[in-house]
Parts: sequence; structure tokens; C-alpha cells
Amino acid sequence: MSKSGSPIKQLPQFQYWHQKIETMPRGHLETLQLERLQNMVDRAMLTPFYAPKLKAVGINGSEDIKGLDDLKRIPFTTKNDLRDGFPYGFLSIPKEDVVRLHASSGTTGTPTTIYYSKDDLSRWASYVARCIYGTGCNHGDVFQNMITYGLFTGGLGFHAGAEEVGMMVIPSGSGNTTRQFRLMQDFGTTVVHATPSFLLHVESIMRAEGVSRDSIKLKRAFAGAEPYSEDTRRRIEELLHIDVYNSYGLSEMNGPGVAFECQCKDGLHIWEDGYIPEIVNPDTLEPVPDGEIGELVITILCREATPILRYRTRDLTGFYTEPCACGRTHRRLRRITGRSDDMLIINGVNVFPSQIEEVIMAMKEVGNNYLIEIEKDGVLDKLTVKTEVGPDIFMDDSRPLNSLRERIRKTLQASITINPRVELHESGSLPVSEGKAKRVYDKRPKDV
Amino acid sequence: MSKSGSPIKQLPQFQYWHQKIETMPRGHLETLQLERLQNMVDRAMLTPFYAPKLKAVGINGSEDIKGLDDLKRIPFTTKNDLRDGFPYGFLSIPKEDVVRLHASSGTTGTPTTIYYSKDDLSRWASYVARCIYGTGCNHGDVFQNMITYGLFTGGLGFHAGAEEVGMMVIPSGSGNTTRQFRLMQDFGTTVVHATPSFLLHVESIMRAEGVSRDSIKLKRAFAGAEPYSEDTRRRIEELLHIDVYNSYGLSEMNGPGVAFECQCKDGLHIWEDGYIPEIVNPDTLEPVPDGEIGELVITILCREATPILRYRTRDLTGFYTEPCACGRTHRRLRRITGRSDDMLIINGVNVFPSQIEEVIMAMKEVGNNYLIEIEKDGVLDKLTVKTEVGPDIFMDDSRPLNSLRERIRKTLQASITINPRVELHESGSLPVSEGKAKRVYDKRPKDV
Repeated sequence: MSKSGSPIKQLPQFQYWHQKIETMPRGHLETLQLERLQNMVDRAMLTPFYAPKLKAVGINGSEDIKGLDDLKRIPFTTKNDLRDGFPYGFLSIPKEDVVRLHASSGTTGTPTTIYYSKDDLSRWASYVARCIYGTGCNHGDVFQNMITYGLFTGGLGFHAGAEEVGMMVIPSGSGNTTRQFRLMQDFGTTVVHATPSFLLHVESIMRAEGVSRDSIKLKRAFAGAEPYSEDTRRRIEELLHIDVYNSYGLSEMNGPGVAFECQCKDGLHIWEDGYIPEIVNPDTLEPVPDGEIGELVITILCREATPILRYRTRDLTGFYTEPCACGRTHRRLRRITGRSDDMLIINGVNVFPSQIEEVIMAMKEVGNNYLIEIEKDGVLDKLTVKTEVGPDIFMDDSRPLNSLRERIRKTLQASITINPRVELHESGSLPVSEGKAKRVYDKRPKDV
Repeated sequence: MSKSGSPIKQLPQFQYWHQKIETMPRGHLETLQLERLQNMVDRAMLTPFYAPKLKAVGINGSEDIKGLDDLKRIPFTTKNDLRDGFPYGFLSIPKEDVVRLHASSGTTGTPTTIYYSKDDLSRWASYVARCIYGTGCNHGDVFQNMITYGLFTGGLGFHAGAEEVGMMVIPSGSGNTTRQFRLMQDFGTTVVHATPSFLLHVESIMRAEGVSRDSIKLKRAFAGAEPYSEDTRRRIEELLHIDVYNSYGLSEMNGPGVAFECQCKDGLHIWEDGYIPEIVNPDTLEPVPDGEIGELVITILCREATPILRYRTRDLTGFYTEPCACGRTHRRLRRITGRSDDMLIINGVNVFPSQIEEVIMAMKEVGNNYLIEIEKDGVLDKLTVKTEVGPDIFMDDSRPLNSLRERIRKTLQASITINPRVELHESGSLPVSEGKAKRVYDKRPKDV
């Protein structure tokens, strides 16, 4: 049994998009990595950002990268570096050879921008295709891409990978839930890509609108773009009777297709022929012992237009140390529980939103949506957790509600050591975002 | 001088994406069309919709298509036929070989759906590339695609064509005007694709926000997805100091890339190696004399997944009869002035919204946005035309306003023979749609 309870032994034989690479012996993989890292360092030397940085640590080109250990000599790159290098500090090919750019939304300042050559795009599509195919999909599947298209990499990235696999792609984009069911029913959608919060929302609305599960043929979902707990995955799987696969990517590393779950659904294989992952202590920046949690740092190995070395993702994860049953040799990352930036400090205690999600999504009586609110109450911080109740619970019967509320409060307190206020809301009444879910509302004054 | 006033003699030499095809002698073009039509009829025979229809008129396959004249034996296909054939009545390949579908929004009933094979998508991209390249763009250009991505063909269609040309594509999508300028400034955008109404809106907001024209490098715009007048084109060109190229396409015929203006900007070359156009009288369905206006009917010549023969587009246009200065042999369509469905009957008089647009966009004092409203006033229809005034006109000075209002009213009455009420609104105060503009609000009871 996999972690999410699916009987993996009943699965058909594992399928590989590129078997030779996916099951390559570690030694060969590392030889390939070294060769590609050397190439990448030469590319980086062509950029205004890296040339002086690399020279400062005595690296003048690939000749100074003798082994993978030399990676550690290269300084880290941060999101702020990408901003400082805007717009062309990281570009290593002539502008005329760029065929696409993606940019972060830039709500807080300068956007971070990634450029792609034609070959970069086809390589990216092939990594996404590898992820999709590895979950058991093939060209007979109907794929509905329920995520934002445009500057965000999630939409166009999955779109290209799914077309490469040859699935019938429905570019439905995000939002418009009722239309999404209609499309699933009309075209027999078998696979969707969405944020986990949108999947939960879809299930709530299906139930509210009386859409029967039998009217859709859904088998699988790829869920990503926001961190979510194993309990949330299990909840989506049980409610929709599907397999949910965890997807990881970030625009700095192309977008989706960096790491993905195979049919074992037990950790995300990071494609080490395309990326070198490291896990470091975010304070000391030293590597953590194998298997421990730390900040994920990634070096991209195959991109002509925008080389990025040792990028600090802020995402917290660790490696599984044992090999995977699927036969792939590329290491697995643990579910990403959050970003180091997401950490809330509430009355001096470190709390991750994922800890709260884990508690409430494990309770059957709790509905599909929740919000976290932090306010200042005098000198103290006040944490309120608002959750929806399940659709079968009526808000006019106060006794069971009081008992549920108290149970949530106690379990949360045991987990995060803070005593939260818990509010119960009617099913479907809390606000839903169409893109990445906004769950945390920190209303404390910024300058305190 | 071209119609829009640009000095075409100063243009660099015309450039062709596929010179041999674009300048192919008519005789050769017709031979190619016949061969492809025969192939298309064989494909159509594989579909549940066409097989009985074609047999009924004595066509059992390509052997019954001896010349292009035999096209006339094939019955017309309408939007309702596409709806009736939903979902797979027009599909001529195994479902597993479909890699994409696009669908109309289906706001009024069943969506119309077009399926594409892998080869269909690359052929489509190459038609769009031909259009883009023919306006003088090349791989050094920066292209901002300010139109909706997703099920609508405009976004993904132009995206693929622009990447094929090798331009740097910014997949900005529609809306978020302020961010659009920011992107133009940051990346030196030279070409945009948008609806004409969004281009006018962009210009208004630029002016309102004090964004200097010198801060952007824009040279060209592709405007389509809604009909617009020559005066609107001229207005956009003068306000933004750019060349605006008219784009025509429809999802039934892939999407954008069906017909496009060359650098002469005087009519849209319809790509006759990919499409057979006919112009018919929408009442009698007989061909109109060459050069006259009628309904455009199109047969697609190269699509594996969804053959569509003699499709009634409802779009009104006619052929230019003289050859184009650019040397392309593919015939030119006149600017599409509207759809036969758009025609309004106001107190028994036929009025096209385009007639109203033509009058008001030719007046310099009128701003960039307008709306048309029809209400019932007792037994009579009442037409109100709401227009914005230009940004330099102040709404508190009533004398010039009264005179402008009266001038608009008189000019409109002379053009459409109906006496409208004219309302003047402050610059930027009328509602703007992010996608196709909604200009006409017919508020008359539906059952009257």
C-alpha cells in the first residue's frame, strides 16, 4: 500500500517515458550531471550576473569544475538576485533567440523573469511529459488543464507536456467551476491538473449542484502550485474516487516538471538529469544530514537562455533515502510542507500553515475550505482558524457543533502549542480563490 | 498610400514566410486546392455528419470531385449543424489521435467544438506564422499576446505562430492594463495582439496614467476577434503611432490565421492553399458577382481531425478584384463589417453596429469607447448611442458639448436613417470588456 492508501500492487506495470534515463544507474547519472554542470557554468559565465560572481570564487569556466563537489564553491542565487538582475542579468543567449518569457506576478516589486529558447521549451515539455506518463497516462487520456494560462508557468507548462504525451488536451483554464464539470461530462475527461484547493472546491460544488460522480470518468488529478498535506490528498482521493499525484515545480526551474510522483505516490522523483538538488539548513546554508528536512536548493542543468545555479527555493523538504519500488533511480523529495517564507511567528512560536491544514483536513466533519487569520489583540497575537463544516452538518443544531469546535481547538493546540479561536462556517461559505489558494490573512500591523 | 494612410512605398521589401506558396500562380493554386479538396471529401466521408449528407447528393468520395466546380454540389454547413453533431459528429480520426480541442463559449447552448491532431496544430501555427511574418515582423521582435488564453483560439493560436516566427513571446493574456504597459516598458515590446477595443482602452489608460509614448517601443498591432471600422484602425494608429494589421479567423477554421493583411494594409489575404472561400447571398445562397458583398463561406483544406466543408461564417465581406501590390496571389477579403447575425432591426430599418462605429470613430472629439442601447418605448424602438468624449474635453462646459451631441446625432441619422438619442460621457467612464467588446445592449423584450 502506498502512503495514500492506493493498492499499488494492482497497478499495471510501471511505464517510463524515457526508461534509459529514468532508471539510469546513479554512477552514470552523476557523470551526466557533471558534464551538464560544466556546460552550465560556461553558459553562466556569459551572463552579467554570474561572470563576476564566479570569477570571485576562482571559477573561470568549466575547466574549474572537476567534480560535482565543486558545485559547493558556487555561491547561492536568491529570488532577490533574480530581481536585482532584472531584466537581462541572467540571459545567456542573444535576445533574438528567446522565444518565450515567463514572469512571476510581481505583486511585490520587480517580477522575476525566465527566458526560454526554442530548445528550452521542447526540453521542458519533455520533462512534463515524463511526469505525466509516469503516472500511467497515455495518449488515450483526456486531459483538462484547470489552471491559469499566461505568464504563470503552470498552464502552458502542463499544456505542452500533455500534448507531447498525445492526450486530448482541453485548455479550460482556471475558474468557472460549473463549466468545468460540463466539459468533464461532455468529453469524458480522465485526468485534470489543478491546485488542491480548486479540486476540493470542485468537489463541493459538484455535491451542491447534484452532479453525480458517475457522470464523469475522472481517474487522476495532478495537484500542485501550492503546498498541501497528505490528509488533503487523501480527502480529494476519497471524495472524487481518483488518484491524486503531487506535482512540484517553480518558474525559476522552468515551471512544472521538476519533481513528480510516480505510481507509488510516495515522494516526488526529482529529475536529476535536469536538476541537481541539495538540501541545506536555511540558517547555516550547510547541507543537512541525508533524509533530514531543510531548504531545497536547485541547479538547472539544461537551459540555454537562463542558467540558474544553486537557487534557494525557500521550499522545505528532504530526501527519502531508500530506493523507490518503481525502479527509477532519481531521488525522491518528501512532500513540500511549506516555504520557509510561509512560517508564521505567533506570540513567539513558529507555526506553519501546513500544520494547521494537517489537523483539520484529517477530521471528517470538517468541510473542504479553511482560512487562517492572525490579528493583534492588545500586545498579543490572536490566531483564528475558520473552517467550513461538511455538507451534511446543519448549522442550526448547536450541540454537536460546539463539541466539534472544541475538538478542533484541542487538537490544534496539541499540534501547534497555541490556543486558537475556532470558527465553524457553513459548507461553501468561505471565499475561494481561482488560482493559488489564499488561506492566510495576517492582519497584524506590518511595522510591529 | 495604403487605405490607412501609411506610406507603403517606404516599406522594406516585402517578406514572405513561404514565398513559393504565397506567390503561387492562380492555376497552380487551383490544382493544389482541388487535390486537397478531394482529400478533404474523403476525410469527411469518415464522419457521422458528412457521410450521409454527401451520399445524398451523389458524392461517395474524392472520385466524385472532378473539379473545383463540384464544391457547389456539397451542402452548406452551419453553426447549428456543428451543435447538432456535438460531440463527435465531425471527428474523422480516432479519438486517441486528438491532442487538443477548442470550444466556443457555449453561452447559448451546446458549445461548438473543433479537434486537432498533432499535425493540425503545427499546420495551424505555420499559417499564423505566415500572417505575422508578412507584416514585417521577425525573430528580433518582442510580441505581447494581450488576449485570452484557453479554450478561445485567439490566445494559443497567436502564441504558437509567434513562437514559430521566433519572436520573444510574452504570454500576458487579456486584462490588467497597467501591468500590460509595465511589460511593454520592461521588455521593449514591439508587437501586440489584442482586440481593437482593448487597444483603444490601453491608449486611454496610458494617457490617464501619464505613461509616455516614448517609454514604449511598440511598432505594430494585430487586431481581431471583433469587427472594427477603418476609422477605428486609423484612430488606433494615430494615437499609438503604430501600424495596425487586420486579422481574421474563426475557431471552426482553426482560429486566427485564416486571412490577414500584408504590409499594404488594404484587404486581408485569405490563404487559398488552406481554405476555399466563397461569397454568397445569405438569402438565396447563390454566389454574388465578383467584388460584391455577401456572406463568407469557407471550406478548410488541410485538417485531419475535423473536416468542415462550405461553412457559413455569417461574416459579411467581398473580394477585392485587383491583384495586391505585395505580389501574393491569394485573394483579398474586404474588412469584415459585421456578421449577418449582428444586424439590428430598429423600427423596421436594418442597422449594423459597424455603421454607427464608422460615424463616431471618424470624429476627433469622440473618445475611445461607445455603447449602443435599444429599448422599447411604447410600440416604438428607441436607439441610444452613448459615446465617451475625448480626454481634453471637459464635461462642465455645456455649450460645445451640445453642439457636438447634435453633430453626432445628425451624422448618424444621415447614415442609418434613424434618429438616435446621443449621450456624451466622460472619458474612461463607459464599461470596458477584457475579451471581445460588448457594445450592443438590446433591451427590448425577447418575445416581441
